[in-house]
Amino acid sequence: MNVMEAVKKRKSVRAYENRPVEEEKLNAVLEAGRLAPSASNRQEWRFVVVRDPETRKRLAQAAGNQGFVGKAPVIIAACAQTDGHVMKCGQPCYPIDVAIALDHMTLAAVELGLGTCWIGHFDERKVKEILGIPEEIRVVELMPLGYPADSSAVKKDRLPLGTIVKYEHW
Amino acid sequence: MNVMEAVKKRKSVRAYENRPVEEEKLNAVLEAGRLAPSASNRQEWRFVVVRDPETRKRLAQAAGNQGFVGKAPVIIAACAQTDGHVMKCGQPCYPIDVAIALDHMTLAAVELGLGTCWIGHFDERKVKEILGIPEEIRVVELMPLGYPADSSAVKKDRLPLGTIVKYEHW
Repeated sequence: MNVMEAVKKRKSVRAYENRPVEEEKLNAVLEAGRLAPSASNRQEWRFVVVRDPETRKRLAQAAGNQGFVGKAPVIIAACAQTDGHVMKCGQPCYPIDVAIALDHMTLAAVELGLGTCWIGHFDERKVKEILGIPEEIRVVELMPLGYPADSSAVKKDRLPLGTIVKYEHW
Repeated sequence: MNVMEAVKKRKSVRAYENRPVEEEKLNAVLEAGRLAPSASNRQEWRFVVVRDPETRKRLAQAAGNQGFVGKAPVIIAACAQTDGHVMKCGQPCYPIDVAIALDHMTLAAVELGLGTCWIGHFDERKVKEILGIPEEIRVVELMPLGYPADSSAVKKDRLPLGTIVKYEHW
């Protein structure tokens, strides 16, 4: 599948088959994240891969009781082991770098027939408690991963290019 | 080119051919960003596409005098028109959402034979002055785009999966 096809096909999957993700596919998804770029190659991303059903259920509860999150066979907690470095532009690099790696992973997942969903609606303190994540680590996103049960058409309700792109100046 | 090939081939391109980017390729790259997901589909991303040589030179100066930035035929200033919404996890959504769109664009660019580089080292105030960007808009990254002149092999100096991935708990 080429990149543009994956971009068009990717959607937020909120229903997953009750079917495990093969080890080699999981590793391929993680490898896509590993190869991502980061500010000064800091690679602050860390991924906690959760397959245990009880832990997944607790993570779903910490994510505002979004039940579908716990029904995915895999949940990846995307974390940052960061010194809090702020780039000259004023942005901390860790949320951006974690997002770059996760985005690589979402597109690699589509190519492998898998689905994902970006979850930013969760209680970071509770997720840390559940997974034993140290105080100094940040949890940036949760990402369920699995075979989509939702076969609905991809709908991309997006602003037109004319609204989001400007030329030469604002 | 499939997604995993694009992931492996993508590198930070710091030398560009003196050759314009075709309109259709530029639009395809922007379209990849347009189709990206964002928190609650907020689509806060805005892109200022700069081709004017003098403006590119000034942007390169604002980016700590990184001359190669100005030599790319296109610079995309990736901005956010944001209400500053913070997700329940504690992260503002706009830097993450802009990063997702830009990452889609970097991989689409590779597929089209183009190169990019993530630039977070710039003076946001100066970039805003140069491009006439209003006070309330954030500039998250600058991204040069063009045909790579640098044909060096892709080197991915990355931590092993064993260091960045944990299973079931931290």
